Amino acid sequence: MKRRQFIQTAAAGAAATAVAMPAVAQSNPEIKWRLASSFPKSLDTIYAGAEIMAKMVSELTDGKFQIQVFAAGEIVPALQALDAVTNNTVEMCHTVSYYYVGKDPTFAIAASVPFGLNARMQNAWLFQNGGNELFNEFYKKFNAYGLPCGNTGAQMGGWFRKEIKSVADMQGLKMRIGGIAGSVLQKLGVVPQQLGGGDIYPALEKGTIDGAEWVGPYDDEKLGFAKVAPYYYYPGFWEGGPTVHAFVSLDKWNALPKSYQAALTAACTYANTQMAAKYDVVNPPALKRLVAAGTQLRPFPQDVMEASLKASNELYAEISAKNPDFKKAIEAMAAFRSDQYLWWQVAELSFDVFQVRTRTR
Amino acid sequence: MKRRQFIQTAAAGAAATAVAMPAVAQSNPEIKWRLASSFPKSLDTIYAGAEIMAKMVSELTDGKFQIQVFAAGEIVPALQALDAVTNNTVEMCHTVSYYYVGKDPTFAIAASVPFGLNARMQNAWLFQNGGNELFNEFYKKFNAYGLPCGNTGAQMGGWFRKEIKSVADMQGLKMRIGGIAGSVLQKLGVVPQQLGGGDIYPALEKGTIDGAEWVGPYDDEKLGFAKVAPYYYYPGFWEGGPTVHAFVSLDKWNALPKSYQAALTAACTYANTQMAAKYDVVNPPALKRLVAAGTQLRPFPQDVMEASLKASNELYAEISAKNPDFKKAIEAMAAFRSDQYLWWQVAELSFDVFQVRTRTR
Repeated sequence: MKRRQFIQTAAAGAAATAVAMPAVAQSNPEIKWRLASSFPKSLDTIYAGAEIMAKMVSELTDGKFQIQVFAAGEIVPALQALDAVTNNTVEMCHTVSYYYVGKDPTFAIAASVPFGLNARMQNAWLFQNGGNELFNEFYKKFNAYGLPCGNTGAQMGGWFRKEIKSVADMQGLKMRIGGIAGSVLQKLGVVPQQLGGGDIYPALEKGTIDGAEWVGPYDDEKLGFAKVAPYYYYPGFWEGGPTVHAFVSLDKWNALPKSYQAALTAACTYANTQMAAKYDVVNPPALKRLVAAGTQLRPFPQDVMEASLKASNELYAEISAKNPDFKKAIEAMAAFRSDQYLWWQVAELSFDVFQVRTRTR
Repeated sequence: MKRRQFIQTAAAGAAATAVAMPAVAQSNPEIKWRLASSFPKSLDTIYAGAEIMAKMVSELTDGKFQIQVFAAGEIVPALQALDAVTNNTVEMCHTVSYYYVGKDPTFAIAASVPFGLNARMQNAWLFQNGGNELFNEFYKKFNAYGLPCGNTGAQMGGWFRKEIKSVADMQGLKMRIGGIAGSVLQKLGVVPQQLGGGDIYPALEKGTIDGAEWVGPYDDEKLGFAKVAPYYYYPGFWEGGPTVHAFVSLDKWNALPKSYQAALTAACTYANTQMAAKYDVVNPPALKRLVAAGTQLRPFPQDVMEASLKASNELYAEISAKNPDFKKAIEAMAAFRSDQYLWWQVAELSFDVFQVRTRTR
């Protein structure tokens, strides 16, 4: 070996060492992902959850892990966001698990079912009582890894053209409501209708439908329902505190460096908190504006609530008889719920009730 | 230059290049911090909040940003954790802001004051309605940057040797309770006592004190109060949903790379959720065990609640008259609270009340 050759070899070795450094730091690769949202940009509450998450992931990784958020319809239709993850069209999506009850009703339980958990209990169950683990076992069938990434809080029961005074008034009512909640109300005689957000207002105006549920004061106000359906009912007992999920392709999740898995986990949990906080901040002023403009607030009659609870339990038993995944998840939720409300009625509820009663003092 | 020398120089150059690589990646420096907790390891709920946060920070940074958690008393006494941050003895602490009311009563409002916000409203206020910004302006005086890093949920009102049937029974009652809550109950005739966790049981047993508040079923059970004070009251109206804070030395915070600031922000918010979830999971079984062992659950009489609310508002007016920081923060909280409970009474409360009533069906 000649001297020049040796030096060149040494230099090449040094270069190899230098080049190898980023390989050592390969734990921070540059990655660009696409996220399909199930929501339109106009819903700055729920759509923003994905943007908050993506921004945090970028900040956590010095901009190396970029997630671009696409609104509903930009890549795939709103209700096919999970499908796009399953078949790796996109790396992840931001959606509500109950949109996929057509594939399997078990999906609904991770988000919200009638008479399920409130928002804080959803967090407790999913994060600290085996809920996330239970559902991620189930989501494997769909090549998905689920992360809680938002919550709306308890929703409203919807807008109606006429007053509902008892369960008899539900008979034959054409209502825009989907999924398991639709099946429950069907047992009360309601005729559930599936309509996209933009189609609800004209249908309510024309009287093609008699009622419609959407989200809560802030989101509902934007769609203008108050003008064509003056009665605004509560609570949306089918959505006591629905969790919004981020789903990552399981293939893509498993291939991520551990620190990027941590970034997604932390950023989704961050967005989970921020979305709930945002809803809590914007809903009260919207409710005040709606009521000032003439909206009639009404609680669902107790017999409607009771009949709906009975119908829900019947439906859960029917599905459980033929679907072991559903049976396992609904029983876990029900056991947790019973314990949670045992405790909730003591300190939480007595505090909140007193605060409501004295709130203006 | 001889061949061997040249080669050595080249190798040194290569080594220098290799060493320089991490300098390019200086945005990810190796950092080791110490965190002083205000809590003993025996409280695996609240103490664990700092450990959960530190573990997440480590995972987010590939182990480069390490935070070592020290239990109360290991570096500084429990109630001097913030002082250790102010004077840069430690880089950060995990504590409750209301421990520092002796410095300024404004500290209390960031965590919890009597008849303040519930846990979810604390999040909404702090994260999405200017609360964190308001308090971080205030904390500057103490060289601290505050991050919400835990919540216990609504606490219990404490353990009493005798039944409390009306506000008259509060007269002369020696009760272990501190801070602003102690000052409020003093207006009702209570004689507040400051005692550390380990001193409460013997004092209650001997009758040196008549009552004591601590946290909730799970934490309280460990201290064995049930054996010496059978009446367990609710709600702890002075702690409707107290936020636990991480405080970082402002000097150290400002010197952090942006990605490490993001790691702390995300990890603290993650721990904020996990602690609340953990409390919600462990409290119901503890409550059942306590009641099964003979604990008598009692709601505070409404006249005690009413008199305490009146006393709280009087105290807030007194402090506000001489403390502009307190005035600003308490008025912001009260305005937010009024709006929050306006909305809360609609969907949330009606849902929860129905769920409590039907929880075993």
